[in-house]
Amino acid sequence: MKVITIGRQFGSGGRELGKKLAKALGWAYYDREIISAIAQKTSLPEDYVEELLDKRPTAIYPVTSGSTFHMTVDPHFNLSNQIYAEQSNLIKTLADKGNCVIVGRCADHILRDRKPFRIFVYADIERRVARCMAHLRPDEEGMTEKAMKKKILAEDKARRRYYRFFTGSDWGELASYDLCLNTAVGTVEDWVAFLVKAVETV
Amino acid sequence: MKVITIGRQFGSGGRELGKKLAKALGWAYYDREIISAIAQKTSLPEDYVEELLDKRPTAIYPVTSGSTFHMTVDPHFNLSNQIYAEQSNLIKTLADKGNCVIVGRCADHILRDRKPFRIFVYADIERRVARCMAHLRPDEEGMTEKAMKKKILAEDKARRRYYRFFTGSDWGELASYDLCLNTAVGTVEDWVAFLVKAVETV
Repeated sequence: MKVITIGRQFGSGGRELGKKLAKALGWAYYDREIISAIAQKTSLPEDYVEELLDKRPTAIYPVTSGSTFHMTVDPHFNLSNQIYAEQSNLIKTLADKGNCVIVGRCADHILRDRKPFRIFVYADIERRVARCMAHLRPDEEGMTEKAMKKKILAEDKARRRYYRFFTGSDWGELASYDLCLNTAVGTVEDWVAFLVKAVETV
Repeated sequence: MKVITIGRQFGSGGRELGKKLAKALGWAYYDREIISAIAQKTSLPEDYVEELLDKRPTAIYPVTSGSTFHMTVDPHFNLSNQIYAEQSNLIKTLADKGNCVIVGRCADHILRDRKPFRIFVYADIERRVARCMAHLRPDEEGMTEKAMKKKILAEDKARRRYYRFFTGSDWGELASYDLCLNTAVGTVEDWVAFLVKAVETV
């Protein structure tokens, strides 16, 4: 079984690339499907699962008080950990089913024993703002470029923190990936054609 | 005029990629030619020019003693700066001549006003050791893998320090480049074919 994992900066077009690459390879593609499956299994609303997975961890860490070591009693924190464990199991199960492309979700770390082909997708901030402004979500209607830039940088920060928390590695650092590609360089079609060939060599 | 600059980890194959890319594009290729030209102009031996350019700066920085600000009196330091200035002028002159690929030499920073296509080439340490062991230089005969690994890591460190010193930016960090490619992914020929197309989009 082969797995390609795609980490990406918010607004870089990593999801589009992942979808097209999976299609070209004839492989399965997983992204939001993972959230939906966890929501179904846990009977929690999809939005809430997504929030737990994406926004957590907040600043909740083990605390030491006197000589006693204990966790802060925060039901969110436990739930977040449980959801992460659920996600890990699900991702392993999906990877067992057959070749696939998985976007985000720390899949590169979760599947590290299988040596996935780890891609990180990035682009400069101006292009990312332009891309997001051209594809506004319903809750982003009327957003200014300035506000969008702020949102994008906050998302990057959240992803970096999340990745660091669960994997112990650095998000968006060369050493964590087999390839760091900039979607402003070349076309998505050219990247897909290159990657279809490259998969054979990794 | 278009310029492609290639920064690379020692032993990653960045030079081979640069040469083949320049050939495929029909562009000029500059690497050691720059050192030779400076050596000729300054009447210094090539090896010495290379050492000054590659190994410097050592820990020589402006120092403050009392309220007086002065530089340490080190003839090497002045020479190193002069050689760097010489190199900058030469690189600008070469870029004026026509489209080209320039490997190393902080060319990405020196030519920043022309917005070059900035590539960084990397590979994991095991592959770099294997590559260097397969292409031993005369002065490396009999070197063990362990010693080679040490040499490679020391070279990386020197390049990072040199780049930081002269450019103020971070060597080998995503934000400093338009593309970070791993030569262990895909073949050099596939990369060249992709890049020849990608040049049109940047």
